[in-house]
Amino acid sequence: MKIKIINPNTSNELTAGIYESACAVKRSDSEIICTNPPHGPICIESTTDEAIATYYLIEELKKSEAEGCYDAYIIACFGDPGVDALRELTDKPVIGIAEAAIHMCAFISAKFSIVSILPRVRKHLEELVHRAGAENRLASIKTPNLGVMAFHENEAKAKKTLIDASRDAVNDDLAECIILGCAGMTGFSDIVSKEIGVPVLDSVCIAVKTAEALVDLGVKTSKSNTYALPTYKEYK
Amino acid sequence: MKIKIINPNTSNELTAGIYESACAVKRSDSEIICTNPPHGPICIESTTDEAIATYYLIEELKKSEAEGCYDAYIIACFGDPGVDALRELTDKPVIGIAEAAIHMCAFISAKFSIVSILPRVRKHLEELVHRAGAENRLASIKTPNLGVMAFHENEAKAKKTLIDASRDAVNDDLAECIILGCAGMTGFSDIVSKEIGVPVLDSVCIAVKTAEALVDLGVKTSKSNTYALPTYKEYK
Amino acid sequence: MKIKIINPNTSNELTAGIYESACAVKRSDSEIICTNPPHGPICIESTTDEAIATYYLIEELKKSEAEGCYDAYIIACFGDPGVDALRELTDKPVIGIAEAAIHMCAFISAKFSIVSILPRVRKHLEELVHRAGAENRLASIKTPNLGVMAFHENEAKAKKTLIDASRDAVNDDLAECIILGCAGMTGFSDIVSKEIGVPVLDSVCIAVKTAEALVDLGVKTSKSNTYALPTYKEYK
Amino acid sequence: MKIKIINPNTSNELTAGIYESACAVKRSDSEIICTNPPHGPICIESTTDEAIATYYLIEELKKSEAEGCYDAYIIACFGDPGVDALRELTDKPVIGIAEAAIHMCAFISAKFSIVSILPRVRKHLEELVHRAGAENRLASIKTPNLGVMAFHENEAKAKKTLIDASRDAVNDDLAECIILGCAGMTGFSDIVSKEIGVPVLDSVCIAVKTAEALVDLGVKTSKSNTYALPTYKEYK
Amino acid sequence: MKIKIINPNTSNELTAGIYESACAVKRSDSEIICTNPPHGPICIESTTDEAIATYYLIEELKKSEAEGCYDAYIIACFGDPGVDALRELTDKPVIGIAEAAIHMCAFISAKFSIVSILPRVRKHLEELVHRAGAENRLASIKTPNLGVMAFHENEAKAKKTLIDASRDAVNDDLAECIILGCAGMTGFSDIVSKEIGVPVLDSVCIAVKTAEALVDLGVKTSKSNTYALPTYKEYK
Amino acid sequence: MKIKIINPNTSNELTAGIYESACAVKRSDSEIICTNPPHGPICIESTTDEAIATYYLIEELKKSEAEGCYDAYIIACFGDPGVDALRELTDKPVIGIAEAAIHMCAFISAKFSIVSILPRVRKHLEELVHRAGAENRLASIKTPNLGVMAFHENEAKAKKTLIDASRDAVNDDLAECIILGCAGMTGFSDIVSKEIGVPVLDSVCIAVKTAEALVDLGVKTSKSNTYALPTYKEYK
Repeated sequence: MKIKIINPNTSNELTAGIYESACAVKRSDSEIICTNPPHGPICIESTTDEAIATYYLIEELKKSEAEGCYDAYIIACFGDPGVDALRELTDKPVIGIAEAAIHMCAFISAKFSIVSILPRVRKHLEELVHRAGAENRLASIKTPNLGVMAFHENEAKAKKTLIDASRDAVNDDLAECIILGCAGMTGFSDIVSKEIGVPVLDSVCIAVKTAEALVDLGVKTSKSNTYALPTYKEYK
Repeated sequence: MKIKIINPNTSNELTAGIYESACAVKRSDSEIICTNPPHGPICIESTTDEAIATYYLIEELKKSEAEGCYDAYIIACFGDPGVDALRELTDKPVIGIAEAAIHMCAFISAKFSIVSILPRVRKHLEELVHRAGAENRLASIKTPNLGVMAFHENEAKAKKTLIDASRDAVNDDLAECIILGCAGMTGFSDIVSKEIGVPVLDSVCIAVKTAEALVDLGVKTSKSNTYALPTYKEYK
Repeated sequence: MKIKIINPNTSNELTAGIYESACAVKRSDSEIICTNPPHGPICIESTTDEAIATYYLIEELKKSEAEGCYDAYIIACFGDPGVDALRELTDKPVIGIAEAAIHMCAFISAKFSIVSILPRVRKHLEELVHRAGAENRLASIKTPNLGVMAFHENEAKAKKTLIDASRDAVNDDLAECIILGCAGMTGFSDIVSKEIGVPVLDSVCIAVKTAEALVDLGVKTSKSNTYALPTYKEYK
Repeated sequence: MKIKIINPNTSNELTAGIYESACAVKRSDSEIICTNPPHGPICIESTTDEAIATYYLIEELKKSEAEGCYDAYIIACFGDPGVDALRELTDKPVIGIAEAAIHMCAFISAKFSIVSILPRVRKHLEELVHRAGAENRLASIKTPNLGVMAFHENEAKAKKTLIDASRDAVNDDLAECIILGCAGMTGFSDIVSKEIGVPVLDSVCIAVKTAEALVDLGVKTSKSNTYALPTYKEYK
Repeated sequence: MKIKIINPNTSNELTAGIYESACAVKRSDSEIICTNPPHGPICIESTTDEAIATYYLIEELKKSEAEGCYDAYIIACFGDPGVDALRELTDKPVIGIAEAAIHMCAFISAKFSIVSILPRVRKHLEELVHRAGAENRLASIKTPNLGVMAFHENEAKAKKTLIDASRDAVNDDLAECIILGCAGMTGFSDIVSKEIGVPVLDSVCIAVKTAEALVDLGVKTSKSNTYALPTYKEYK
Repeated sequence: MKIKIINPNTSNELTAGIYESACAVKRSDSEIICTNPPHGPICIESTTDEAIATYYLIEELKKSEAEGCYDAYIIACFGDPGVDALRELTDKPVIGIAEAAIHMCAFISAKFSIVSILPRVRKHLEELVHRAGAENRLASIKTPNLGVMAFHENEAKAKKTLIDASRDAVNDDLAECIILGCAGMTGFSDIVSKEIGVPVLDSVCIAVKTAEALVDLGVKTSKSNTYALPTYKEYK
């Protein structure tokens, strides 16, 4: 099967990191295609960034559908931008990495924390947790003031910040599992887990396995009501 | 004061109707500027339409802010597209017409119904009701299969459909108030109210009065955390 | 238009302060009539006080309706006493200052705190927040042990307490906006806002603008079911 | 022990019926005193009625406390008027008949319906169900347009209406238990239960047993925060 | 009446303590039979313990029903194990001690805390609170690392731990009432209450009074749908 | 990898059907071991059946862990019996088929219905939906009075009932996806989907893919707090 990962952040370094993580967990018979749209913000750290990135995500998805060879799509930004729109435009499964991680952690822990980036995204993360119906399983959201590119700017410092925030979540908030809440944190779950002693989930990796599962099952997006193809209309 | 209404639908007819409704309720010392972005979908009937329209909304807002003369902004589409993004980009109040109507109807009724357009938008409307915290006040959502342009295509038929759905909401679902859930329905609240005997709210009109109220109060959008100006970043 | 503010606290000093605040934000063509019932508690600090005040509120409202000249009513106590009863007795909009502020702050912030009076009212404030559907937007409730009359007894001390509690809400609870949760705090929002750097809402002022908005719109209280006029019955 | 039942409805017929029901279930060593305040509405069918009745309830409670001989109080109106205020004024248990029934039915059924009086009280009943945390156990609320005095005006007709509404709740809404939602319906639970085949709860009777239980346990109302005695204040 | 208390913990000491507490509050005309199943875990401190204990609870209940002389059953473990299953097997009221305490405390306080045993049971207690619809009344859950047998191993130390945790709940979390969240804590409520000054509820005692109340009322478990007798089926 | 499916129903026919479904979707490098405990109810149709089956599930799980060769466990009954207990006893992922399906359907539809067996299980299914946080995505629960063994007794009739109930869910309740809510319905999803035109999920199949995903990821059950290994204790 062919799984296309679209990184709505246009940073090539981020896209490369995501690709590497995805390849590390994919099955031997899965093919990962990982790209970012040619246009849009280097990284997504606000609702405005996300809205603009969504525009280019839609273009990228349409182009991909025209190629006609992908079995599933993954949107590799922890804000899950555009997933509802993209589900209208294809019947192949479209998977946000945040929702993938939030749903999957229900099987292995009773309480999780999200360790994410900047305080300004907290409200948006609360909405994602609500959307996934996980309020009762949420221990806390940590926003230790890390930018999306922090791991590419000063990896050692970012790693320490990440580990400290994760440990606080376990000790203070009784988290039993940590979700790393940014595509830029992909690749660091094993290191953090070793330090703090509870499972740490890499949302990119989980999305890849969720995509493989859905494609194997032959399950497609329902085209009844909410995710039906939009009717044609004139665009100015 | 100057209130800028941005209609994210690019239909000139819709924009004209919205302008007319707004002018009918504005105070004599308020000035209404009503426009639609030069690009985007004629009308918004899907999440995809909404996502694309949001992109152009952001451009329009930035242009308006550069002009520097507006005191508040209204987004005239019942999906409230882009309001969270736009609040990041200005400290002037930004008001979605759906949230304005849902909040305001709390003062005059215990249960309301939304009469809106197509069945496919039901889930999105449920999310707007959740966002405004009005689940306990919601009697029902009616989606009588009306397109956004229905009132410009066959007004008599659309009006009848609207009245019938509103009456059903009152009789079957015990709605005590109706919110017309589409910018394209502006101007029809009095007619419907007369037929069914309960208050019928025009969300464009309510948004205008909410904008006037906030400007009079001198209240601006909080720039702490969620709606802070996005940090500068490179765009490809 | 004529807006009648009824202060259910019978303190003349409180009533004078409320009147002053209301006049400061009213439009030039609005007339504010502000009074308190002749009987009832000097100030409302318990559910018992509130219940007794509601009795006299009903009498005052009936008297006002008999005068026949008011376009809207505001109940100027942050517990929103009696609003549901009063809505049964008139079709003019009846607005509680707490609900007005809680709804309005949705347009300009993602998280708010209420800074109110005594710890004993916390549960009642939680119910008001629930009633307005704002649990998801609530950062915290602060009850810094201020009596309703504190600002009339020792203004300097009360002001300091208010500023300290508001600053705590911003720093510790990530409030992006503060609602002053007592009619006795009216007039202090600007001072607090200057100190702490986020919007601070004066609920009396917001209620006045909400009343003006509803009167302009010509929207009246629904008389279907919940707020219908009570049927006549014998009183012993 | 002495249990004082205060019927906030001033109808002597209602009070007599309540007394009879209470006596039928009380233990031999319990004494029931049942009265209604000398003033107030004959029967409570609106929020206004309830607010006025609460005023006289407070007077009655204060008088009773001065007598100093009661071990618990029951408020015999299904709207549970004034219970929070009265809990401030005494440390003896104060029990609303609605909350008593809603809590107790959790032990014997998974889903219940309330069969109550007029459509206008539906919203208030929803709030009582919320207050008792029973939303997930609620099958439906039926308001078959019965006045509070219906059983004293035309018993045969009222009984038939009650049975029909209860049967509908069982058949259509899958109620496993019925709560009769009006003090005026006391005494009819056995008849309805025989007809429809599921338990039917008489809220007056349940409140009596709840009062006996609390008195036996020696549990008093917490005087910490919410239900502390109101501080003295001047009344005009 | 005859009330059978089944202690799913097989510790004779625990059973003896529960019997003593129950006898101390029962009415003179009630008979308490208190036992534990012959098999099962000495004490229940995990979901596994609870699941195994439930198996033996069912056997014990069936045996008791065959004896045909009991009017109500109490399950004396704060996890409320098996109550839904047992309600299927008898029409006599079946009462869990946790649900009994959580419902009853609504009548005498606005906010309660549960002081229970080990951190690992926190999630299960949250589910019990949800099941009883008491999320809005919950101040906090304290799990001060006490084993179920702690009071039989080192009573002085356990008592101190219990008092400290209860005091923290009152001071830090604004609890107005404490529920002792373990059958092994029965008998200590008066001591704790004296120390901390708010009501402290003994869940075994409350369950006894709830059972007496239901038996007096003649209310039986609904046999419609959820708690109907299971159909016969083959067991391997 | 080796995935052990434990069917808590002891019917060999059911176990065979589950095994067949699992094999049809497993990857070529996965090995499915499917068994049922030697003891317990032929099929699970009540909470009592479920409680007894859970006892034998625990025994079976312990035996399996002693064998030491399994990478994940699936509990093949739509009530998800015992999953929390089993998670305490192993660090291998333990997956309930109901939770697997409810979480997975979030990726491909906005509203789902469960078509299950008998009306008596409705409340339990509501609790499972709550547990998975899917209340907002639930369109309806259908219980068309099918026994667990219905498909083995009269397949044609059972199939027709299943299709009719599923169609009703789509047409009347606006379900966009159907989950077959019984292990006994495994194998019928394609047939139903073809008839009604929306995705129909087979929960056994989804659980297999979820197990494969988790094993591939190397994610194990958190042993912090809730799912820690129970401490040793004496069993009578």
